[in-house]
Amino acid sequence: MKEFKVGIVGFGTVGAGVAANLLNNQEVIARRTGIKPVLAGIADLDIVRDRGVKVPPELLTTDAAALIAKVDVVVELVGGTTFARKLIRSALEQGKTVVTANKALLAEYGEELFAVAEKSGADIHYEASVAGGIPIIKALREGLVANRINRIYGIMNGTCNYILTRMEREGADFEPILKDAQKLGYAEANPSLDIDGFDTAHKTAILASLAYGEWFGLKPIHIEGISQVEQSDIQFASELGYRIKLLAVIKQENGAVQVRVHPTLVPKNSMIGSIMDVFNGVMVDGDFVGQTLFYGRGAGRSATASAVAADIVDACLDLNCGSVRRVPAFRRGPQFTKLTPIEEIESRYYLRLEVLDRPGVVGRIASVIGAHDISIASFMQHESRTNGKVPVVILTHLACEGKVRQALAEISQLDVVTGPVKFFRIEDI
Amino acid sequence: MKEFKVGIVGFGTVGAGVAANLLNNQEVIARRTGIKPVLAGIADLDIVRDRGVKVPPELLTTDAAALIAKVDVVVELVGGTTFARKLIRSALEQGKTVVTANKALLAEYGEELFAVAEKSGADIHYEASVAGGIPIIKALREGLVANRINRIYGIMNGTCNYILTRMEREGADFEPILKDAQKLGYAEANPSLDIDGFDTAHKTAILASLAYGEWFGLKPIHIEGISQVEQSDIQFASELGYRIKLLAVIKQENGAVQVRVHPTLVPKNSMIGSIMDVFNGVMVDGDFVGQTLFYGRGAGRSATASAVAADIVDACLDLNCGSVRRVPAFRRGPQFTKLTPIEEIESRYYLRLEVLDRPGVVGRIASVIGAHDISIASFMQHESRTNGKVPVVILTHLACEGKVRQALAEISQLDVVTGPVKFFRIEDI
Repeated sequence: MKEFKVGIVGFGTVGAGVAANLLNNQEVIARRTGIKPVLAGIADLDIVRDRGVKVPPELLTTDAAALIAKVDVVVELVGGTTFARKLIRSALEQGKTVVTANKALLAEYGEELFAVAEKSGADIHYEASVAGGIPIIKALREGLVANRINRIYGIMNGTCNYILTRMEREGADFEPILKDAQKLGYAEANPSLDIDGFDTAHKTAILASLAYGEWFGLKPIHIEGISQVEQSDIQFASELGYRIKLLAVIKQENGAVQVRVHPTLVPKNSMIGSIMDVFNGVMVDGDFVGQTLFYGRGAGRSATASAVAADIVDACLDLNCGSVRRVPAFRRGPQFTKLTPIEEIESRYYLRLEVLDRPGVVGRIASVIGAHDISIASFMQHESRTNGKVPVVILTHLACEGKVRQALAEISQLDVVTGPVKFFRIEDI
Repeated sequence: MKEFKVGIVGFGTVGAGVAANLLNNQEVIARRTGIKPVLAGIADLDIVRDRGVKVPPELLTTDAAALIAKVDVVVELVGGTTFARKLIRSALEQGKTVVTANKALLAEYGEELFAVAEKSGADIHYEASVAGGIPIIKALREGLVANRINRIYGIMNGTCNYILTRMEREGADFEPILKDAQKLGYAEANPSLDIDGFDTAHKTAILASLAYGEWFGLKPIHIEGISQVEQSDIQFASELGYRIKLLAVIKQENGAVQVRVHPTLVPKNSMIGSIMDVFNGVMVDGDFVGQTLFYGRGAGRSATASAVAADIVDACLDLNCGSVRRVPAFRRGPQFTKLTPIEEIESRYYLRLEVLDRPGVVGRIASVIGAHDISIASFMQHESRTNGKVPVVILTHLACEGKVRQALAEISQLDVVTGPVKFFRIEDI
C-alpha cells in the first residue's frame, strides 16, 4: 500500500489531535482509502511538554524547514498570520500540498496563498478552518456543487453559543457567564476574537467566498458581537418564540450579496434555533437541494483533527492518483455581482426601548416608526416597573435597515424614552 | 474548458430534475470546477410526455444502448432491479462511469456491480441513493474518513416522517393520515415500501456497509414499520419527553455491529428529534468528530437531482484528472467482526399494555419484569377509562431484548392484562 509522509508544524491542541488521529486510526483510513498517510514528523519550538499523545520521540523536531523538505503533505497548525504565512508560502513553492486550519490567515491572505499554489501546481486544503469537525467546505464545494446558493446561515463560534445557551438556561447576565466560561476553559482570557464576532467573521468570509466565487476577506462583512445581548433580550425573544444566536448571514438577494455577522433572533423550533451549547451548525439553502443543515462540534482537539485528517487523506489520494488540484483551493468566478451595504439590507427587526409609563407614549413611538415606512408586526409592553419605566419590545415586518436606524435615532430623542434604543435583526429561517 | 457527455437513462421525476440541473446550472458548475458536464441525451420508453423541463427534442431517444455507447457518464434513473441491473453492468463493462440513485439495486446487488466495475476499471457513484439531497455518502467516505464510526442514526424516509409528524400535530390516527398523505402525493398508492421500513432499510444497508467495510445487504437488518404506532403511543411518548421516529440504528458495541430499522422513541429536544415533516437527517458519531448531523430533503425531484449532479461532477473531475476510482464505489475491509442478533441487543424500552383497573395489578406486572432482570425507569398510569381498563406505560433502563420479549410474553398471559403488549425501543441520543 502506498504511503505518504505527513509533517505537522505546530504541536498545540489541534496538532496533538491530528497526531493522535494518524497514529490511532491509520489502519481505518488505509482500509477505507487504499493509501496510508504516515506521520513523518512534528515541528514545534517546544518539543518537551507533554501533549497527552504518545509520539515516538524521533518524530519531534524544532526544525520546521527540514521537516517540510522531507514530507509530501505539510500540515500548518501554527496559527497567526506571520510565521504561518511564510511557512505555507515556502511549502507551496516547494510543491508540497498544504493542509491548514488557519481561518484568520485564509480570510486575510487567501488570494495571495492561492496564487502561490497555482503557480507551483500545489494545493491548499482548509476544511478545518470553518466549523471544526463539520465537513462543510467539502459539502459546499463538492456535495452541493450543482446548486446556486441562495442563503447560508451559520452558528460557527462555540464560545458564543455556549454563553448564549447558558444565559438562556440560567437566566443570568452576559458578564458573569463569560467569566465562568473563562474559568472553565470555554472562553479565552482575551475573549474578544470570539465574543466580538471576528472568529465567526473569518469563517463567514471563507464560506461566502466559496458560495459566490469572489475572495471577500473581512472588509465587506458587517460584524457585531454578543456583548450587547442582555438577559432581558433573551427573555423577550423567548416569549415571542425566538432564540438569540450569533449568526453568520450570507445571502444573495436581488442580484447582490449580503455578508454579515450579528446577534440574530431565530425561531426556537427551527433546526438552527435548536443548536445549543458549544455545537456549531451551518444551514445551506441551494436552488436545487433546498434547505440543508450540517451540525457538529466546531472546535476542540479531536473534532478539528477529524477535519484536518480528512484533508490529509484527500491530499494523499490526489498525490496517489496524480490529481493534485482536482478541486483547487479556490476558483474565482463571474457569478458574484455586488455587495449590499448594511444600510440597504431588508430585514425584520426586534426593537427594545424603555419608556415612561404614561398615556400616549406607545402612540408617539408607533407614529415615528410608521413615518419611516416601517410596519409593526407585534408590540409587547409588560407591567410597569416600580420606577415608573416600562420596557417596550417591537417586532417589525421587513424593513430597510437605513430607515430603521433613522426611526430609532428619532425615537431615542423623544422625552418619554429613557434609555438607548436597542435592535437586533430577525431571520425567520 | 473540457466537456464531458452525460447520458440519462430514465426520464422520470428525478431524471427530469437532473436534466433541469444540467441545463440550468451548467455555468455555475463550470465556474466552480473548471469542467463542463453536458447533457448528451435522455433515454426512456416514453419520450413524448411533458416532464416540465425544456429538453431539446434531439436529445430524447428510446435507444438506451446507443446513448450509453456515446457518453462518458451514464446516469441510471430507471429504478427497479432487473433492467437497471443489466444496464449498469453493460455500462461498466464498456468502461463508462455510472451514477445511480437506485438504493434497492445497490442493497441487493451492490457487490456484484462493484466487482464488474473493478474488473473494467470503471466506477459507480451513488450519493442520491441515501437521504436524497444530503451529501451523506460523501461525508461518510471522505469528510469523516478518519473516524471509527461508533453510531449512525437516520431518519431517511420522508413519507414516514411526514405521517408521524402529522399524527403528532393533529392528534389523528395512522390510517386516516396515511390516506390523506396518499391523496396529497406524499405516500404511494402501495405504501408498503415506505411505511413497512424497507426503503429505510435499503439506505441503512448502504450506510452500515460504508461504515463497517462489509457489504451487508438487507438480510442482517431487523426491520419494523410504522403502522403499529398508535396515537396513544405518540401522546404517551410526548408526555415523557420523547417523539416517535422511524429510525435507522447502526451501532458498534462490544466488537459487534447492530443494524436495525424500527419506530423509536428519541428525545424531543434532541437534534434528531427536531426533524419534522418530509425532512431527513442522519446523525453520525465518530470517535474523533463526536456527534454530527446532516439534514435536508430526502426525496423529491430537485433535491435528489442535486445529489445526482454532484456525483456527475465528481465523475467528470475524475475523468478530467485521470483519477477514476480515486475513491472507489466500495472497499471491503477487515474492521467488521460480527452482527448482533436482535434478541441480543441492549436497549431501553417503552412498554404499553392495557390492564384491568384493580388493586395489585401494577405489582404483578412489575414482578414479572423484575424477575427477568429488567429495571423499570418510570411507570405511568392514567385515570381509569369508563370500561374499567387502564393503559399502563413503562420505560425500562437498559435491558436485553430477549429478556424483554420473554417478560412481555409472560405478562400478556396474565388474566388482568386485557390486550396485546406493545413495545418500542428508546434511543437517548
